[in-house]
Amino acid sequence: MTEAEFLAALRQLPLHPGAHSLTDDTATLGRYILTTDTLVEGVHYLAGDRPADVAWKLLAQNLSDLAAKGATPVGVLLNYPLRGADDWDAAFLAGLATALTHFSTPLLGGDTVSLPPHAPRVLTLTAIGADAPAPPRSGARAGDALYVTGTIGDAGAGLAIALGKDGPAELLAAYRRPQPRLAEGQALGPHVHAMMDISDGLLIDAERMAAASDLAVTIDLAAIPLSPAYAAFAGTDRAARLAAATAGDDYQLLFAAPAERALPVPATCVGHFTHGTALTLKHGVQPLPLPGKLGFQHAS
Amino acid sequence: MTEAEFLAALRQLPLHPGAHSLTDDTATLGRYILTTDTLVEGVHYLAGDRPADVAWKLLAQNLSDLAAKGATPVGVLLNYPLRGADDWDAAFLAGLATALTHFSTPLLGGDTVSLPPHAPRVLTLTAIGADAPAPPRSGARAGDALYVTGTIGDAGAGLAIALGKDGPAELLAAYRRPQPRLAEGQALGPHVHAMMDISDGLLIDAERMAAASDLAVTIDLAAIPLSPAYAAFAGTDRAARLAAATAGDDYQLLFAAPAERALPVPATCVGHFTHGTALTLKHGVQPLPLPGKLGFQHAS
Repeated sequence: MTEAEFLAALRQLPLHPGAHSLTDDTATLGRYILTTDTLVEGVHYLAGDRPADVAWKLLAQNLSDLAAKGATPVGVLLNYPLRGADDWDAAFLAGLATALTHFSTPLLGGDTVSLPPHAPRVLTLTAIGADAPAPPRSGARAGDALYVTGTIGDAGAGLAIALGKDGPAELLAAYRRPQPRLAEGQALGPHVHAMMDISDGLLIDAERMAAASDLAVTIDLAAIPLSPAYAAFAGTDRAARLAAATAGDDYQLLFAAPAERALPVPATCVGHFTHGTALTLKHGVQPLPLPGKLGFQHAS
Repeated sequence: MTEAEFLAALRQLPLHPGAHSLTDDTATLGRYILTTDTLVEGVHYLAGDRPADVAWKLLAQNLSDLAAKGATPVGVLLNYPLRGADDWDAAFLAGLATALTHFSTPLLGGDTVSLPPHAPRVLTLTAIGADAPAPPRSGARAGDALYVTGTIGDAGAGLAIALGKDGPAELLAAYRRPQPRLAEGQALGPHVHAMMDISDGLLIDAERMAAASDLAVTIDLAAIPLSPAYAAFAGTDRAARLAAATAGDDYQLLFAAPAERALPVPATCVGHFTHGTALTLKHGVQPLPLPGKLGFQHAS
């Protein structure tokens, strides 16, 4: 099955109301929200990546889903495969300790299993948060502006650097040590109509928010916020902007809010929602065809 | 790292109070409890096992941890790896639908990832329960009797049958479709000092309860409850009783309660707790040496 077929079949199972019909990255249970992410060696991270960076990313990616709901992290569960005598395990745990401490998030439990020696590692972390004021991603309204926090494309450039390109340490760090926007999410939560994190790319994630909200969205490439380091590395022309808007792993927040509303944290307006369907792209006043790939797609 | 080394290192991480110092199968969060289990193809189930049976086992094993706390299941999260076009996925989901319906447990969410074509499947399910009256496994007291629900050894005999031995369908079903003792757990919860499920074997799990409670435990092989089907398949002599007491996957409840207390559900007294440490085995009045293996041990 493809991921889309599998997801469609999952929706036929008995679903909890807090599952939001499996259209959101988090589930709701009383005052708690839950999210879970799995990283596969060779698919979601490079076999040569440092184990401490993998631990950071596993935690950060989950906490980013909590951030997108404005929640405060409460604890995590870890499912870890042991592949036999291996320095990797100790280095992973040391990195996880650093990351848990950094994000003030304690371990609640988990499961440890054996894996055959040559099988790729499959790492699962489940994060629980509390007091999430943000609505699901389906809440955008026609007329809302589409905003992003921070800058876009830094992690994608960092991946290219990790794969061998020359480039600044700052971009590599954006890829290896993503920062979930927990404080921004908590501040924005009560003010937005819809919010999610950008994990697979600005264009694909914006299209998902529009689809979940039954709306069309138009994005202006000229408005995509680029960091000085990204501009120096990749330039600021259309190709560079398109690369930034279709790269994954930025973990910035993407949200819909009324255009006239004052926001509690800095964010950049990159588009707007209207009645209709689908994603439209422009560069300033010039309409653009959609690129072949809107972002990172799993198991397609 | 071995599992024991890994677990010791995990205990050095920042822990949530509800993690119970990682000495229990479930974590506590407000009125909720959480448990998570991972099944690895070729380690926890046979590559040729029917996908619907694997789905059942994945759910049943998690619900059994909730049963051991007397909790009511609320929902589950599923982390599932797609390995490309494959009938296995649809059959797994059909089996999961049957199992979720059978146990009145809805899906809350999860994550779907890609796995390389020849990698073993790694399946994770996280179950959330509510209103768990049972204390942790560390609560046994000197003088308590040790009880088990149901009969012991059926699933172990079923595994031998799954691997090719001749034997009755009833034992095979005990291995393939284990029944978490949810109703028994809910009834027993308020009456016990300590409770856990038997997943790895009666002897090893009883030893774990005694160790967590800082006590010694003595078990009488003659008291181990055997089903008529097991007795017909394996006999009732000492070897058959030892095989039953060291086999995994029974998912019966093991609990400590005052010997004189009336119990709300049928259970068999198989031993008792005293001051001291370690597990002692006897057969009627005759002391026995401990077998080399007390049960199924992961990643040792």
